[in-house]
Amino acid sequence: MSEKTLLVLDADPPPRLGRLTGRTRIEHADEASLAERLPYADVLLVWDFTSRAVRDAWPGQGPRPGWVHTASAGVDHLMCAELAASDTVVTNARGVFDRPIAEYVAALVLGWAKDLPRTWELQRAHEWRHRETRRVAGTRACVVGSGPIGQAITSVLKALGVTAAVVGRTPRPGIHGPDDLDRLLSRADWVIAAAPLTESTYGMFDARRFGVMQPSARFVNVGRGGLVVEDALVEALSKQWIAGAALDVFDREPLPPDDPLWEVPGLVVSPHMSGDTVGWRDALGAQFVELYELWEAGKPLLNVVDKQRGYVPGH
Amino acid sequence: MSEKTLLVLDADPPPRLGRLTGRTRIEHADEASLAERLPYADVLLVWDFTSRAVRDAWPGQGPRPGWVHTASAGVDHLMCAELAASDTVVTNARGVFDRPIAEYVAALVLGWAKDLPRTWELQRAHEWRHRETRRVAGTRACVVGSGPIGQAITSVLKALGVTAAVVGRTPRPGIHGPDDLDRLLSRADWVIAAAPLTESTYGMFDARRFGVMQPSARFVNVGRGGLVVEDALVEALSKQWIAGAALDVFDREPLPPDDPLWEVPGLVVSPHMSGDTVGWRDALGAQFVELYELWEAGKPLLNVVDKQRGYVPGH
Repeated sequence: MSEKTLLVLDADPPPRLGRLTGRTRIEHADEASLAERLPYADVLLVWDFTSRAVRDAWPGQGPRPGWVHTASAGVDHLMCAELAASDTVVTNARGVFDRPIAEYVAALVLGWAKDLPRTWELQRAHEWRHRETRRVAGTRACVVGSGPIGQAITSVLKALGVTAAVVGRTPRPGIHGPDDLDRLLSRADWVIAAAPLTESTYGMFDARRFGVMQPSARFVNVGRGGLVVEDALVEALSKQWIAGAALDVFDREPLPPDDPLWEVPGLVVSPHMSGDTVGWRDALGAQFVELYELWEAGKPLLNVVDKQRGYVPGH
Repeated sequence: MSEKTLLVLDADPPPRLGRLTGRTRIEHADEASLAERLPYADVLLVWDFTSRAVRDAWPGQGPRPGWVHTASAGVDHLMCAELAASDTVVTNARGVFDRPIAEYVAALVLGWAKDLPRTWELQRAHEWRHRETRRVAGTRACVVGSGPIGQAITSVLKALGVTAAVVGRTPRPGIHGPDDLDRLLSRADWVIAAAPLTESTYGMFDARRFGVMQPSARFVNVGRGGLVVEDALVEALSKQWIAGAALDVFDREPLPPDDPLWEVPGLVVSPHMSGDTVGWRDALGAQFVELYELWEAGKPLLNVVDKQRGYVPGH
């Protein structure tokens, strides 16, 4: 068996790759050197999942790796028509972020229901002002995205007594199809965007969809920035079409200090961290090694992305 | 049947008492007039549960009502040796606050785990700073207080995957006794005070108990201010014996604007609102009417407080 070359696209070396030492040639590339190194790689590990260099390097001179793994749930940053049309297998980090993101969404939902942001404001003002808060149990959520992240969000919200409906691309038992979306949005207290970013989801949360929601509704995006027309969200908040929103992902990341989104009333801005609990890099590294050992042994890979659809299809 | 007199201690008239109109003489008293009116009342409804006027009016001149109901879970504000020794039956609002308080505690726990207070701070500074957060599932909670509120807190935390132990005055299946308290405190990520305020719980969270907790532990008081030695908590936070705390109840309520507690780093201050969800006053009024109709019909009352112990005993 000839030694294989694993090319890692990253700024810092990933953890947990020690098991591969001695049996795999591990090389590193940055965005500038990626195109040049790619023809010599059997496997590409996209550790820096904020980079769009993979997309730019496809197609290119010489052979391409047979397998690309991204240490992220979404594959939008690397997918392009040429990669989709090629024989290269793409896998993702399905499973690592599900539960952390679900807890993050639950934290926002409960925090809003209990008016915690206002509590912190009033505390800074030394002001004792009693308010009536909301019960979370019995409220309704519409979770858009029926992959493992959307399903984990649904499961945690249901555990809190929330009536949660999931919307996916294809209706199936327990999952609503796109035809039900507007009806579910119009009744939801909480709308959670957790879909992959694809041609059919790009900009799906636009002025019309925010207009369908209830004035008391709150919107959370833990998917990808491109799911949301940011200007339409800002307008919906300023016109009080909806009561609040939280964005963990953005068109531009990191969000520049002078971006007006930081100051939008009713909007919570967080730095793309909803899925990143202590140990997440270890989990991503360990997951890659597990897949690598399947690949090395010639066994079928897990978490194989449907490159046309842009996500790992459900069952 | 002679018409009965219901005396209501309150500032504003309670809702939902309309059903009693025409069959009951409903009178109102404020703190100043309570002692004078009490001899003519068959029933006293303590609607203003922040008042200590009942305690001050016992004993007093003339007969006392046979039944006192308080629109609160705790009875510490009205209980005194003379009332305890009397024939007067005392009932409370058991059940109304359980689930709301449980959700409130879950909101704090998830908010801390996901570092939401820091997210709000960084947003104000327009600062994109990624952090790793914590998983709530798999953490440990110690809930002190085995009444319906403590049990609801435990149930909601368990639904989030938290390993939650409950400590009560008397060990029984599923409930730890006081002997287990220090061991459970020493292992808990979250310590929740939800006990009634009695002679045996007064000041139970003191310097020694905060010293037993882990440096990463966070403490929540949704019971009564008197459970906590406030100075000891402030010292524990400043010396980083524990990582954070939230107080919804205080020795002095409302907390005055110049109280140093507003400014303690790591401390969340809220205005005794954890159980008060929209409609809570209606629920309290309806609950009283339900008890009143039992009493009027000569049937046994529900939610009868053990006046020696200071709470409604569990089963």
